[in-house]
Formats: sequence, structure tokens, C-alpha cells
Amino acid sequence: MLNKNKIENTFKTIQDEICQNLEALDGSGTFKEDLWDRPGGGGGRTRVLRKGDLIEKGGVNFSSVEGALPDAVKKQLQVEGENFFATGVSIVLHAVNPFVPIIHMNIRYFEIDGGDTYWFGGGIDLTPAYVDVEMASSFHQRLKILCDQAHGDYYTKFKKWADDYFYIPHRQETRGVGGIFFDKLQENEEMTKSDLFSFVTETGRAFYPLYEEQANKFRDQKYSDAQKKWQHIRRGRYVEFNLVYDKGTTFGLHTGGRTESILMSLPETAGWEYDHHPEPKSREALSMDYFKKNIDWINL
Amino acid sequence: MLNKNKIENTFKTIQDEICQNLEALDGSGTFKEDLWDRPGGGGGRTRVLRKGDLIEKGGVNFSSVEGALPDAVKKQLQVEGENFFATGVSIVLHAVNPFVPIIHMNIRYFEIDGGDTYWFGGGIDLTPAYVDVEMASSFHQRLKILCDQAHGDYYTKFKKWADDYFYIPHRQETRGVGGIFFDKLQENEEMTKSDLFSFVTETGRAFYPLYEEQANKFRDQKYSDAQKKWQHIRRGRYVEFNLVYDKGTTFGLHTGGRTESILMSLPETAGWEYDHHPEPKSREALSMDYFKKNIDWINL
Repeated sequence: MLNKNKIENTFKTIQDEICQNLEALDGSGTFKEDLWDRPGGGGGRTRVLRKGDLIEKGGVNFSSVEGALPDAVKKQLQVEGENFFATGVSIVLHAVNPFVPIIHMNIRYFEIDGGDTYWFGGGIDLTPAYVDVEMASSFHQRLKILCDQAHGDYYTKFKKWADDYFYIPHRQETRGVGGIFFDKLQENEEMTKSDLFSFVTETGRAFYPLYEEQANKFRDQKYSDAQKKWQHIRRGRYVEFNLVYDKGTTFGLHTGGRTESILMSLPETAGWEYDHHPEPKSREALSMDYFKKNIDWINL
Repeated sequence: MLNKNKIENTFKTIQDEICQNLEALDGSGTFKEDLWDRPGGGGGRTRVLRKGDLIEKGGVNFSSVEGALPDAVKKQLQVEGENFFATGVSIVLHAVNPFVPIIHMNIRYFEIDGGDTYWFGGGIDLTPAYVDVEMASSFHQRLKILCDQAHGDYYTKFKKWADDYFYIPHRQETRGVGGIFFDKLQENEEMTKSDLFSFVTETGRAFYPLYEEQANKFRDQKYSDAQKKWQHIRRGRYVEFNLVYDKGTTFGLHTGGRTESILMSLPETAGWEYDHHPEPKSREALSMDYFKKNIDWINL
């Protein structure tokens, strides 16, 4: 039966599988686990890998929290009810090599009062400092295959949602080359709760091979100090997005979530250079041309 | 006559004086100036010094903007009216040496419809990575003298205001050792508009000697890589405060302010280390004990 325990346990297994795969891929770093309890109910397993061969800093978090529905959550999510349950897996990986993109994946399930109201959400998106057009296209093609297996409209819809969500208005640029983002998925005539759960599970399981492809392509590429510096500047933008706009981050910080688990998404190092503009036609400038909405990565 | 032109010109002069003094103090770096116009009216002079002998990155901004009062401003400031005028000087300095504190100063004047409603705001506060108790006390003593010259209640009131304002709830720590912060100062039985303007002007002029004292005390102190790393972690907290809580920053970013001028406050380099805790009784841990509200720096 598809109840919250099943979903929670599946998410835990996905966390385990991803951590095992990432440790093998990294080859040197290992995850440090922190178990934590939420005062109002539930808790989580925060796992962070630092100073690996591939990964400079990466977090793979699982959480499952429940209790009285806080007023702040009612307001933010525009829901009513007495009790809530929320479980999810959330990942951000910052690689050492500036040519390996930052990657983010999240899957989540939320229900109120034993499932009277529920929804799924999640997504995967890629933030390269240097855009490799072929590899960004490959990333989107794989996401399209993942989506198409669930519903023919999903890729188009969720790719646009990611473009709109991962946008930094004050920079007039997207965080990276996007991916898919979805929220509040509820059963309907076309998709049962089980169908939705399968899609979310497949999203979680798609994460590792997607990252492996990107990481192995670039991890041994030589880079200069100037390219590492560019990575720091792009990481600064990532920090700006997460602290100013990302709903999960700002909402978590404002409502007493576990700060260290929320902010594991921030890079080990980042930087801000006043009014930095890459040289025209440089690799950096050419990358900037792709931090835009509505790029058709499938038919580029 | 004390009108907006007088205030604007005085603020400009204060920016000039401070930049001259800081260049002399730095001994190597010079300010790069960007003049900018605001589409709706007015503009500014953003000045940034990078990679100096003392200052790693420092911004000294002047702006004077005016035009139709935007709805977002009406809502944020809870005011009504047709037209606004706002001018101010805003400074953040990040030093190379981890023992030299970050310093922030701001003075500002806001008026609606030709001065029917107006107020002054501002403040100075200090954010050391390593707290030197004597030097933090000296900083507060000088601020108390500054405040006492204007009004006997100001230091106590504005020191508390800074404690409350420069607080990072999700870290349960203050940004640094505080200082003074004040907003919406309007004339009353005790203080005329001229009195308030004098106080704000004196605050602006107090900035340089305050910083000079801190900088000269620590700028030649030797430091290790580990101490530079600690500076990066504390700068990370500074970024968290500015991007998540600082009203000027978030409001500016959300309402189309000049991004590069607003974010000149962010450090050239910063970092986030997962769940970092200094060794008990280390200099870092002892510093953390002072990132609290309600420390009586005058009678410590």
C-alpha cells in the first residue's frame, strides 16, 4: 500500500543508493552523517562529503518531519489542517573542478491530516560555470526521456517551471542551464497517486547517472587559477539565488529548520567581484549567453 | 537653509572625505568610480577599492534618487504620498588581514512630497572575525561620545537597535559586536531637523577615525591560513545576514535597485564549512562568545 511509510522508506533507500554511488564515483571522500531530531516531531539524516577527489562539498539530505501544522506553513503553502507530514531527499554537489557543473536534486512528499490533502514535488537542475552545449543538451535529453515515461506533457511543463523558478531577477540571468522543477503534483484523471510516486522515485533514481555523465566528462580537465576564480563568481550567484529567492531555503531559515542541513547547499568557497564582466567572446562570456530562459536544449 | 540639496551636498562631501582618507590609509589601493543614473530619476556614485594593502574589497557609495513613490516603497515603509527623494552614503569595508574587522556605515535621508514627511536613518557597526575586547569597547565608547553630544538617550537606544537589527536568527548570533543603528528620526520637542542633520553628519564624519583606529591596530598582525579560513567563514555569515535579513539589500534587490551597488557589500571571498565549530577555548570560540545581544561594552 502506498502510504507515508512506504514513501519515506523509499526516499531513505534512494538517499542510501546515491551516497554509495557518489562515494564510489568520488574515489576518495566519504559522507559524514548527522542524525537530527525535530523538536516538534520527526528528524533527518544529513550527509555531507567534503574535500573529495571530485566533490569539494556535497550534501545528500533525507528528512521526515511531522507534527502540528505551523501557521507559517499554512500561510506559505495556502493550506488548512491540523497535522502535517513531510519527507524528502535534497542534494547539492559542488565539485572541485570548475568544469564540473553544480547539480541539485530534490524529491519531496507533503501530506495533511493523514493524507486528506497531499502532493509531490521535486526536480533536478544543472549549474555549470562553463556551459558545454552538448553536455547541457544531453542532460535535458535524459530528463525528457525520464519525463516522457510518466507523461507526454511533463518535460515541456517542468522544464519551463525550472526556467522560471531558477531565475535571479536582480541579475537577469538563470542560475544555470535549468532542468526540471515541479510542485504540488496531485492525482488526477491521468495520473494516480502511485503514478506520481513512480515518477518522483524515478526522478530520484535518475539523479546519479545524470551526474556521473557530467562528472566523468570534466573531472580530469586541467584548469587555471582564473577558471577557478570564475567558478567562485558563479558560486556567488548560486548563493544569491539560494539565500534571496529559493523558497525551501528562505522558508526553512525563517521557520526554524535545521540551519546546517538547509545551508549545506552553500559552497565551501565563493566570491563576489564588483561589476565583473567576462572578456567578450571568452569562454566565460559564451557561457553567460546560455544563462537564459526558454532555450530549447532538445532541438538546439 | 536645510533643504534636500544641502543634505545631498553634505553627504557627497562626506563620501569624498572618506574616500580620500581611506586611500591614504590603504597606501596602495585607489577607488574606482562608477556614475550611474536611475531610470525613474536621480542616480549615484559607486566607488569600490579592490586589492589594496589594507582593504581587500571596500565600497563607499553615494546615491540620490527621486521620482514617483513606488507602491513597493509605500508598502515597505508604510507611507503615503506622490513623490519621494532619498539620499545616502553607504560603506562596507572588508580588509585583507583577518584581524581587521569588517566595518559598515550608513547615513540616509528620505522625504516625501517636498519634505511634508521626512526622516533620517543610519548607523555604524563592527564585525570582527576575532574579537579584541579592548578594541570593541573602544569602538563603543567612541560611539557613545558621538551619541551623547546629540542626546543623552541616543547611545543606549541606538546600541540596542543595532543589537536587534544585526541579528541572525537562524544562527542565533549577532553579525558582529554591533554599534549603533537608527531609523525614522523625525524632529520632536528635543531635536530640530537641524539637530538631527548634525547628528547624522557627525556620524558620517566619525566613521573614518573609528576605522583608522581598528585598522592600524591590526593591519600588520601576522596570520595563518587557518585564521584566513576563519575570516572566510565569518564573511559567510555576513553574506547570510545581508542577503536574508538586511532590509536595504533585500528591498533594493526586489525593487530593481542597482545590483552592483547594493551587492558591493559582499566580500571578495567567503566560504561555508558544514557544521563548523571552533575548538573549545580557541581564539575563534572566545570570539563567538561576544556575538550576542546586550553586551555592555562600555562597562565590561
